[in-house]
Parts: sequence; structure tokens; C-alpha cells
Amino acid sequence: MTTAQALTGVIPPVCTPLTPRYEVDTGSLTRLVDHLLDGGVDALFLLGSSSEAAFLPDRHRRVVLETVVGHVAGRVPVLAGVIDMTTLRVLDHVRAAVDAGVDGIVATAPFYARTHPAEIRAHFRAIAEAAGRPLYAYDLPVSVHSKLATDLVLDLAAEGVLAGVKDSSGDEGGLRSVILGRRDREDISGFSVLTGSELTVDSALWMGANGVVPGLGNVDPHGYVRLLRSAWAGEWDAARAEQERLLHLFALITVGGTRMGISSSALGAFKAALFLRGVIDHPTTAPPQIPLDDDEIGRVGKYLAAAGLV
Amino acid sequence: MTTAQALTGVIPPVCTPLTPRYEVDTGSLTRLVDHLLDGGVDALFLLGSSSEAAFLPDRHRRVVLETVVGHVAGRVPVLAGVIDMTTLRVLDHVRAAVDAGVDGIVATAPFYARTHPAEIRAHFRAIAEAAGRPLYAYDLPVSVHSKLATDLVLDLAAEGVLAGVKDSSGDEGGLRSVILGRRDREDISGFSVLTGSELTVDSALWMGANGVVPGLGNVDPHGYVRLLRSAWAGEWDAARAEQERLLHLFALITVGGTRMGISSSALGAFKAALFLRGVIDHPTTAPPQIPLDDDEIGRVGKYLAAAGLV
Amino acid sequence: MTTAQALTGVIPPVCTPLTPRYEVDTGSLTRLVDHLLDGGVDALFLLGSSSEAAFLPDRHRRVVLETVVGHVAGRVPVLAGVIDMTTLRVLDHVRAAVDAGVDGIVATAPFYARTHPAEIRAHFRAIAEAAGRPLYAYDLPVSVHSKLATDLVLDLAAEGVLAGVKDSSGDEGGLRSVILGRRDREDISGFSVLTGSELTVDSALWMGANGVVPGLGNVDPHGYVRLLRSAWAGEWDAARAEQERLLHLFALITVGGTRMGISSSALGAFKAALFLRGVIDHPTTAPPQIPLDDDEIGRVGKYLAAAGLV
Amino acid sequence: MTTAQALTGVIPPVCTPLTPRYEVDTGSLTRLVDHLLDGGVDALFLLGSSSEAAFLPDRHRRVVLETVVGHVAGRVPVLAGVIDMTTLRVLDHVRAAVDAGVDGIVATAPFYARTHPAEIRAHFRAIAEAAGRPLYAYDLPVSVHSKLATDLVLDLAAEGVLAGVKDSSGDEGGLRSVILGRRDREDISGFSVLTGSELTVDSALWMGANGVVPGLGNVDPHGYVRLLRSAWAGEWDAARAEQERLLHLFALITVGGTRMGISSSALGAFKAALFLRGVIDHPTTAPPQIPLDDDEIGRVGKYLAAAGLV
Repeated sequence: MTTAQALTGVIPPVCTPLTPRYEVDTGSLTRLVDHLLDGGVDALFLLGSSSEAAFLPDRHRRVVLETVVGHVAGRVPVLAGVIDMTTLRVLDHVRAAVDAGVDGIVATAPFYARTHPAEIRAHFRAIAEAAGRPLYAYDLPVSVHSKLATDLVLDLAAEGVLAGVKDSSGDEGGLRSVILGRRDREDISGFSVLTGSELTVDSALWMGANGVVPGLGNVDPHGYVRLLRSAWAGEWDAARAEQERLLHLFALITVGGTRMGISSSALGAFKAALFLRGVIDHPTTAPPQIPLDDDEIGRVGKYLAAAGLV
Repeated sequence: MTTAQALTGVIPPVCTPLTPRYEVDTGSLTRLVDHLLDGGVDALFLLGSSSEAAFLPDRHRRVVLETVVGHVAGRVPVLAGVIDMTTLRVLDHVRAAVDAGVDGIVATAPFYARTHPAEIRAHFRAIAEAAGRPLYAYDLPVSVHSKLATDLVLDLAAEGVLAGVKDSSGDEGGLRSVILGRRDREDISGFSVLTGSELTVDSALWMGANGVVPGLGNVDPHGYVRLLRSAWAGEWDAARAEQERLLHLFALITVGGTRMGISSSALGAFKAALFLRGVIDHPTTAPPQIPLDDDEIGRVGKYLAAAGLV
Repeated sequence: MTTAQALTGVIPPVCTPLTPRYEVDTGSLTRLVDHLLDGGVDALFLLGSSSEAAFLPDRHRRVVLETVVGHVAGRVPVLAGVIDMTTLRVLDHVRAAVDAGVDGIVATAPFYARTHPAEIRAHFRAIAEAAGRPLYAYDLPVSVHSKLATDLVLDLAAEGVLAGVKDSSGDEGGLRSVILGRRDREDISGFSVLTGSELTVDSALWMGANGVVPGLGNVDPHGYVRLLRSAWAGEWDAARAEQERLLHLFALITVGGTRMGISSSALGAFKAALFLRGVIDHPTTAPPQIPLDDDEIGRVGKYLAAAGLV
Repeated sequence: MTTAQALTGVIPPVCTPLTPRYEVDTGSLTRLVDHLLDGGVDALFLLGSSSEAAFLPDRHRRVVLETVVGHVAGRVPVLAGVIDMTTLRVLDHVRAAVDAGVDGIVATAPFYARTHPAEIRAHFRAIAEAAGRPLYAYDLPVSVHSKLATDLVLDLAAEGVLAGVKDSSGDEGGLRSVILGRRDREDISGFSVLTGSELTVDSALWMGANGVVPGLGNVDPHGYVRLLRSAWAGEWDAARAEQERLLHLFALITVGGTRMGISSSALGAFKAALFLRGVIDHPTTAPPQIPLDDDEIGRVGKYLAAAGLV
């Protein structure tokens, strides 16, 4: 199942623009895809956490898949998240994604139900078998409340179940264990290690990661692409300077403060930034997220200005 | 939205029998419903955690709803869980449940995404508005990782959003706060407080709870009904003796030990018990749960024997 | 090590009055002890969480032990907490408590370091051996971040290591498992099960608990004693009415709101209540707890008035 | 209070060798200090988590302080941890450390009691005032169950309360926020940012961290010093190679497996390695930690051999 060559580069988790009535805004979505491709991203990841996948009904998910796969038309690989609680439900999303023609699948450990590591392994095996294309594990303990152990990831890589991992755990020691473990196991050189930690991309690449899946990459894909290109060229000082600029920009996720959840504030700020940059038509987020008010959106604009994005 | 009269009694979360190929076994499901009605239960709760709702695709959920609502034919109220991550996804389940003709809806706080109390309130308000029938909050922090605060529950009761709460938090002090808070707010006397803690039912009733939603009630509905009837008759010693017998029986959930998750072990044991009692045809649980082996199923049988159930 | 007869009744965790300069206010402390004895309590528990043991230097702890043991002079048993991170540190506190002449020791699982159940067992065994008097396990996962499993408690009881447990876990199903497990193991009938959940005392007694260790019992010992006496007389309705009055009173712990931690608010309110009732001279709590302001103390007074305590 | 110049380099948390009867083995301790100084470390950190501070009675702590401060005699700065639950208890440790002549103090947020950010600030302010020498915040949420927020750290730095932070949270994005926040606030350039994450030292230095506090640095101080010197010389490839060698060595902490806690396994392995290298006389760890058996110690030896340390 493993691809001959590891997936690499900037692979943003594509935001899902919505109309004020919470339908997928396909016009804005295609403009967002164009914005990302113009930025030079290497692949697209649909229906991840930053895409509000947890907030989107199945019909919205299908519209997203069909709109983007059709619009991209093979120019870059398109991955799709299949976020749901357990195996049979996830398999339904896999079928929808495969039918839409995606190039890879991204799945978390089970959640809601409390699971055992042996059950997590069985879960990924069942998904890989059904998918028939590369499967990436999405390590996101803040949402699913279990962490994927290094051995579990490497064993499933060696079995051919996993083609890569998107590590959003924030555990950089664990990330490095996977990277070195891959090197130590000769047969999994095509396994792709991607970081979801958008504030430490230069150091993840330095350790040997293959790429990044940055939510903030929706707002500034050009910045993340410059970061990667600099690192790959061995221009680490330039990579670091770019990362530091992006870290300052990332503070826009705090504009919502304590009157809302971090999800509302972060996803709301990403969408507000895309709205202010003219990429999407509405900063709408899905319920029950609390929308940013005008003052908060205004402060997003100040972060954009400070980062040279307006 | 509040019903004139609070929902009361034994309301088991109905297990979902599966065929060995993981389809809903409708024959077994109707026999299970008959078994529960024969036990004298007061209502049925479909698609809760003990029903493996987190493991069931939407088409399975629809089969469950249609099979049971049709078979019950109004003899007792039928409630349906609408377990999913956030509002729009939950609303799809609400529509399916309403279309199937259920009498009430049971919903958790959002999960996967990290939410704010204000977002939890918005979530329940949106569900109640769409449901058009009694809505029960399902307080299950072990699965959704947030606890419903007493004030949140009582405020939403006073607003007419919630008709009741199923408290599976294990926080008996919090349960009692809701019970006394209900008494202190004259306008919500019809609000139903149900415990999901199957080992402390006599004491929950003693505090003023209206009923219980016991997973173990699948295995021994007659026992829980005797418990409730004794309590309501003021025969508290008999209620306690019944509860203590059921607590001993409940230990059957440990047969799977540490080689599987507690979900696999508990739901596997409930289904093994129903299989051994001749109610359902297969003890199959949904993937990625690990099935009990023959030895473990044999030990479930010993618990049944000790409880006088074979 | 087990006492022939289980410890029973109301055993308040005695607050530690402080001077404004954070020394132990021994005059207030002896008045508090008199207040509790006047209320009819069955034993005293020094240096527990409600005593601010986690906030008190060793010399303060010694002053508390000597002051109270001397003043009580054998009229009721005096237990002492030995709250510290791990075994050798705890053993120092055990020696100090034994030297002061206490009748029993109360110890938590280790904390700060992450421990294994086998280590928790070793910890209690070492303490019991050093103490030479009854040892009570203090189950307080909110502070020590591990829960004492039912089997661990019962096994250590059967070994003679534990004379009882003070269950402040809030897990009433677990509490009941211990109570029934005690009944099932003939040799540990003298094992004492005490609840630390001050809002569900009537139901804990109903299940078979031997007594309660209520922080709120500092403020209203007479109330808790009435509750116990009613329950023991089989007057359960009276016990429940008393418990419900105390639950309303317990809301005084919320006066500090969100500008401080729950510890500051709860312990501050207990001390403010004792100050307002004329029992202690200062409502001072130990740093870094935030003191209640005059308005908040005033609101404590309203709760006292509503409970008939002024 | 801030030092004119930030503390930098390799600052190992010095293990505390024990005799088989759990007394401080001062002969082994001075040899361990010599081993570390021979390795070229820049400062020493006594009584941290890797020193088993949570396991050591006060008299042990005093022996450690006096032994090491005397033996070092000013050759490198000596910092001391003051690990305890809350302010007054910590202040007692501060006095002991100051009396012993240490050069700096290292303190965690309060634990056991649940605290509010405002209380954490008050806690550090009180310690700094009493210490009269540089105070370093120890961010260790795995032990104290609260994370120090970036703003809290930077504000206390600007106030002159904190001279630095030892970040053992594993949150590299947070670490970087502190590093960049320091750069953005001109007045705190002397603030020292140290990582406690021993597997990502090269990347922490790359981000701008001043040094590392590596538990594994007890076993291989020369390796960590080479890592730092390489990084400071701009020889990042050499730094990375050294880090990767150390990451492979670090796997020795797993020899204890699942029959003990991670603390027992990690600290036991560090001490076994020092024993096998001839630095200390006994691999003894403090109770209730479970000792490694001969087989496990043998496997530690294999890790040493693989890392070229025997």
C-alpha cells in the first residue's frame, strides 16, 4: 500500500468556506484552492480538523470532495480525511472519498468509545484494506484522547498499512522517534512523516520530517512554501526567519479570547483572514461555533497587516 | 418542549444485535425488545452508548429505528440517541429519528472539537428547535470530555430546551444538585432526571431521580424493574437487595480483562449474556472491538448462573 | 493492624485557623475543636485537604498535632493526614504524628511522580509497617491523579495493611463495590468505609458506609451529626432532609467565582463561615490562595442565614 | 532579580545516589559531580525530578545541597529545586537552599491543590522575594497538572520575578512562543530559556533556547556537551548526529516495561547506567519505586554498549 515515494511538502488542510446558511460555498472553495495552488502547495488535505470536518454533515463532505477533486484535476495529490468515531462509520467515508477520486486517506484513532491499542491497530488495518490507496494516520490526541505510540506507527508502516503519519500531537520527541525509527527499519523508507505543528516546521524538517500540514497555510500558503523551499535548499536561517514570521501571524487565533472555544477562535480567525484577503465570501463557521464579531475580525486584519499580507 | 409529565422508570439503552457480517440482526433485535417489554420496562432508549451507536453507520441506525418503532407500535415511549460530533451532523440524525417516529431525542455535548459552555448551550438549543419533541441531555464526560454543569442543565430546562437529563457522569453530588435545583425552580417540575449509573440506582431514586438507563438492564430487565417498583412502593430494603444482586452481576463486564478496551469487554459481555440467555443469535460486536473468546463467554455464563439468570 | 471495630460516624477534616501572618492560630484551633466536639462528632481528622495540609509547613503541622491531641485528651479518636509525595517523605510525617499521639494515620497514593499500582501497594505497606496503628487510605484522584482500584483497597484490607478508606473520589459505584466487597470477604468486617462526598452522605450510609469525613462539617457539625444519627435510627426521611439542607448550604463554596481556584473559594468560604459564626478569629487562608473579599464573605453570611446558622 | 547574563549550556539534573538503605551515598554523589564536571557541563541542577526530589526527605535534600555545593566550590553555578506543593512549604526549601549557598532556585507551579493562574503568579512572586537570587520556573505539567502559559512566564520575566524557565512540558510550540516573546520584549534579554526535552535539544537551540537540562545527561554528559558545543559553533549537522545518538541511547528508559511506573523505569535505568559505568556504587532508587532486576540492568548495559559508552 505504501507509495514508492514519500509524500512531501506543504499540504494544507483546506478550510471549508460556508454560506451564511451553512451550505458549502463552492465558489469560495474553488477560489481557496486556486489561492493554495498559486502559493505552490504540494498537495491538498480535505476534511481535516481545520476543514471543520467534525462540523460537516456527510452531504457537505461529498460536495467538498467532488468540488475540489474536479477542480484540481490531478494537478496535485488530494487527500481526504474520514473523521468519524469507529471503523464501520469511517469505512462509509472511505468509500465516498474513493468514489470521488482522492489520492489518499487520512484517519484518526477511534474516539468516543474507549479503545485499546490492539483495537487501534485493527481499525487502521480495516481502513487500509478498504481504501486501496495510501492511508495516513492522523495523530491528534487533543481530539481523540489517545496518542499513537511510536511502535504502533512503525509496525503498521512495516505491514504496509500506513503510508505516513500526520503528527499533530505536539510531542516532538515522539515525532523524532518515528523519524529515526523509520531510518532504522530499512523497508519503510517510503513512509512519510508530516508534522501538523505549524510553529515548529523548520525544526521538524531539520529532524527529517517530509512535510507539514499547516492550518495557517490556508491564510499564508506562500509563506509555508517559502519555508519548505528554503529548508530543502539548506538555507536554514531563511527557513527560521519565515517560521518566526508565521509564528507571529499565528497569534491571530487568539482574537476570540475566552468568550468562545479555541476551535471557534482559531477556525474563525483563519476564515476571517481569508475573507479579509478576498479569497472567500463569508467568514461563516459551522454551529455551534461562536462567530467572531466585527471587532475581532478587525483585529485579525491587524495581524495580517503586521505579517505583510494586506 | 417539556412534557407535562416527567419520563420515569426503567429505560434500557437497547443493545444492537449484529450478524457475524456486522449487519443489524433485526430478528434478534425484535426478540430483545420483547425480552425488555416482558421485563416490564417503561420506555426504550435506542442508539445510546450501550447500543454501540458510536460503531453503527447511518444505515444501521435507520434499520434500528424503523425496526423498533414499528415493533413497539406505541406500547412504550421510544427515545433515540443522535450521537455525533457537532450540531449539523446531529441534526441529520434528529431528522432520521423524527421521521422514524420516535418519542424523544437524546443528545450529548459536542465532542472531538473543543467547545465552550456557550457553544454547548447553543448546540442543545438548535437540536431542541429541530426535534419538535422532548430532548434529553446525555451527560457522558468519559466519552465527550466535557461535563454538563448543573446550572447549564437547569437553565436549559427552564428555557424549555431540555425535557430531562440522563446523567452518566458518575458524579452523584452533581446529580443531586440537579434534583434539588429542579425542586427549587418551580417551573421545571416536569423535568426528568435519569441516572445512567447502574450500580447506584436505589440511592439515585432515593435522592429524587425519576428513573434509570441501565446498560445491564439488557441482560436483566426484570431485576431493574423490580428495583424500581420496590423503591416506588417505599420498600427500600428490597430495592437495595436487588441493587446489590445486580452489582454482583455487573462484574461480568470484566471478563475481557486487559487484552481489550473496556468498551469491548462490557458490550461484549452484555451481548454474550443475551446470547447465552437465548435472546439474540450472535454475540457479535462491531469493529474494531475485540470479540470475547469462548473462555470469556463461559465466564459470563457463570455470572449469569450466580445471579439466578440461567 | 485492623481495629477490632470499624471507625464510624462523623469525622470532620479539621480546618487549620491561621493568624494574618500565616502562623497556626492555636486559640482558634482549640475553639474549633470544641465547636466540633460540641456538635457531637465521633472523631477528628487533622491535616487533610480541608485542613490546608498541602499548604502547611512541617512546623505548622506539628503545632496542629500537638495542640489538638493535647486538647482532645482522648475524648475522641484523632486521625492525622501525612500528605506528601512519596514514601520516605510520608514516613517522616508518620513519625511526627505517632510521636504526637494520634490514633490513626490517613495517607494518599503517591503523587507528582507517576506511579504503578504495584508501587501504590508498596507505598501503603511501608506506611502501615511504620505507623503501628490503623492506616486509612485517602482516595482523592482530583489531587493525586490516580484512583485506588476496588481490588487494591480490599486486598490491602485483607492483608491487614488498611483499616479503612476515606473515599473522596466521587465515584459512588466504586464506593459501593468496596462496601459489598467487604461483605463478601468475611475476614475484613472491621474495615471502615468512609465517604468524603459531603452531598451524598445519606445514600452512602444507605449503601453501608460507616461514616463521613465532611469538609462542610467544620461549619455545621451539628447538622452532619443529626444526619448520621437519623440514618442510624432508621429515620431515613429525616436524614435526607438534613442532607438536602446541607447541600444548599454547601453552595457557599462558590462565592469566590472564577477569579480564584476552587480550593481558595471552598476553603476560604469554610473559614469565613467559622469566622462569622464566631468560632475562629481570622478567615485567613494560606498562600498562594486568594483571600475572599468583604463582599464575598458577606455572601457566605447569607448562606449561613438561609441554613439557620446565625 | 534577573541575572545580567542568561544562564546557558548543559545543566544536568543531578541524580541522587542512594545506599541500599536509602541514605544519600555522598561518596557516589561527589563522583557523579566529578563525572559531570569532567564532561564539561556548565552548571548543575540539584533536587529536580531526575534527582528523585519528590522521593527525598528534607534531611536527604540538605545532605545533597551541602555535599554538592561544598564539592563544587564555585567552579560552576549550582541550582536547587524546591519541589513541594505550595508556597509556605516551598519557602522552607528555599531557605535551606539559600543557606547551603546555591546560586539559583528552580520552582514548579503549585500542585495537589488546584490553583488558578493568579495564584501561580503569586506563588512565584513570593518565592522570588524570599530567594534573593535568580528564580527559574520549572514547567512540568505531567507532574503538577498545570501548564505555565507563555504570557505568565513573560510577564513574570518582565517583572524581574523569573530569571528563566526550564520547559519540560514537551510543547515545542509553546517553547518557541516564549523564545520569540523574549525577543519582542526588549527588557528581558537576560531571561534564560532552557529545554528539559532531551530528545530535541538541537532543534530547541536552533529556535533560540539557551541550554538544556537533560536527565540523560547524567549518563552521558560528554555527549550533551558535544551537542551544545557543535550547535554553538554552527556545526548543526554534528549537533544533529549527536542528538540522534542520544535518542537511541534514551531508549534505555524502557527496560522496566509495564511491570513498573515510567518513573521507576527511567530513573532506575539512569542509575543502573551510572552503576555500570562505575560512577556510583548502587543502582538503588527510593521507594516506592520498583527496582530493576538483573536482566533489566543487563539490558541497560546493551544500550550503553551500542552508544559507545563501555
